[in-house]
Amino acid sequence: MRELIDNLFARQLSNPSLDTRADAVPLTLDGGEIMITTDGFTVQPLEFPGGNIGSLAVHGTTNDLAVAGAIPYYLALNVFIEEGMEVAQLERIIASLGESARALNVRVAAGDTKVLRRGEGGGLYLATTGIGIRHGPRLGLDLARDGDAVLVSGPVGDHGIAVMLAREEFGLQGNLLSDAASVLPLTRAAVELSGLRFMRDPTRGGLATVCHELHQASGLGVQLQQTAIPVRDPVQSVCDMLGYDPLFLACEGRVVAVVDPAQADILLQRWRGLPEGAGAALIGCLTGSVRHVTLVTGLGGERILDELEDDPLPRIC
Amino acid sequence: MRELIDNLFARQLSNPSLDTRADAVPLTLDGGEIMITTDGFTVQPLEFPGGNIGSLAVHGTTNDLAVAGAIPYYLALNVFIEEGMEVAQLERIIASLGESARALNVRVAAGDTKVLRRGEGGGLYLATTGIGIRHGPRLGLDLARDGDAVLVSGPVGDHGIAVMLAREEFGLQGNLLSDAASVLPLTRAAVELSGLRFMRDPTRGGLATVCHELHQASGLGVQLQQTAIPVRDPVQSVCDMLGYDPLFLACEGRVVAVVDPAQADILLQRWRGLPEGAGAALIGCLTGSVRHVTLVTGLGGERILDELEDDPLPRIC
Repeated sequence: MRELIDNLFARQLSNPSLDTRADAVPLTLDGGEIMITTDGFTVQPLEFPGGNIGSLAVHGTTNDLAVAGAIPYYLALNVFIEEGMEVAQLERIIASLGESARALNVRVAAGDTKVLRRGEGGGLYLATTGIGIRHGPRLGLDLARDGDAVLVSGPVGDHGIAVMLAREEFGLQGNLLSDAASVLPLTRAAVELSGLRFMRDPTRGGLATVCHELHQASGLGVQLQQTAIPVRDPVQSVCDMLGYDPLFLACEGRVVAVVDPAQADILLQRWRGLPEGAGAALIGCLTGSVRHVTLVTGLGGERILDELEDDPLPRIC
Repeated sequence: MRELIDNLFARQLSNPSLDTRADAVPLTLDGGEIMITTDGFTVQPLEFPGGNIGSLAVHGTTNDLAVAGAIPYYLALNVFIEEGMEVAQLERIIASLGESARALNVRVAAGDTKVLRRGEGGGLYLATTGIGIRHGPRLGLDLARDGDAVLVSGPVGDHGIAVMLAREEFGLQGNLLSDAASVLPLTRAAVELSGLRFMRDPTRGGLATVCHELHQASGLGVQLQQTAIPVRDPVQSVCDMLGYDPLFLACEGRVVAVVDPAQADILLQRWRGLPEGAGAALIGCLTGSVRHVTLVTGLGGERILDELEDDPLPRIC
């Protein structure tokens, strides 16, 4: 097993930075503020329509750098493999991880593998740390202003529902793909705007949770327009059947941006010009006139979106 | 559980770099080559005489930076908690992790926590990435020369045996402490020497495995003097009883150094002047006259130390 892992990881992830014989390796980083983020991945099932835990780890980690206005350059990878995991599946997942990293010009600079006893592992867990450089202006929840526009780069909830369907717990089937992907093209296009305040990828807890974070940090209300929020039909159908709210479901390839209202249309056009942002929409605004996160319905009513009490879908990331 | 974790981690690990609301945080790093390392921790039991999985994660990760000639500055922490883990134990471990990091002036800059379903976790797994700056000269296996001296900073095998005894599988008891600790004072003292070629902490696979890595990288033989290698009596006794070789047992607070023979005594005196290096010893040399890792016994015989085929003690780190 150990030899296989060494060969597998060395072959799939090789790059000039990775030295499997070194205790620590140097990183070449120039030209801006160094940014760090880290994430654990425990998704079940390990492979799902549109991705797997390997590609998800790369996208999830580099997306956290991207929405902070940084370009990702390096990953450190920890792998926890349960004894008895099928080798062919491990190979598919690590190949996918390597491919996703190469597509982003991100190098796996350091790695470690531990084997967990059978029955103590859930197959495979990954933990990835991402290092990048911030090139654009500083972004932050604290920069949000009354009247700022809120945009989302595409339909919400695809990842949450795709993973849930792949679990086959509810006897439902569908051909919905996870949205898991890099958001770097979207964030690169956005950081060029002087009026950009803040970006976040709405993962666990979804769009509504990002809005609550915005509300808590700014003290401003967040008013969303229900009819403006893009939700795919199959996502809405499953939500209707099972009583979920798509606004609380995880995305793994979307960006929520807060921007000066004077630049909202520019950002919307830029995003719509990218394949990753074809479904982008202006969905609401920050406002001092309400003190909650609210949803204006198609009929003109307004209801408060409460905070998520408990995650409806465990092990989605 | 989520609130508890947020409170616990925020309280125990708080520092100016850690922003639990940010996707990625900036790192301030000046003055040298940036070094990265990463490590997973799955030790059982989670607490053992002389340490626990929390302090071990800090020491294990920062030690990999230290032996590469770097000063550690930041950690990124991933925590995988099995549902049902005793909260008081988690609190002890994270407190110990925070304390160990503060003692080294190392900041936990990024973190993530995932909860694993009961029966899929082994209690607690940690994954830590360390970032540091190399201040001394470049070190490497490739710098080793024929005639170089090999030193170890203290007795070997304490960690491996202490963890094994804590597992109580063999019905043995003892008051042996793990050697798990920071080696930074030792490596700081060593990097000042112009003749220092290479350092490594002999963790999994022990001293003998470091010697095999030296042999494979340099093509030179490694000749160790058995009587010179420090081994504590209780470690030797347990090894004698159970048929282990202390040279293959893990240490978590020792350094093996390869140095110009003209500076071997200087390094030895420096190490012996430190509390961490009181038991340091000159244990052998690199030589072109043999083509293996060999052990010269007390009676003057010489035997080949084979490579470790399989780790005798699972889950020690």
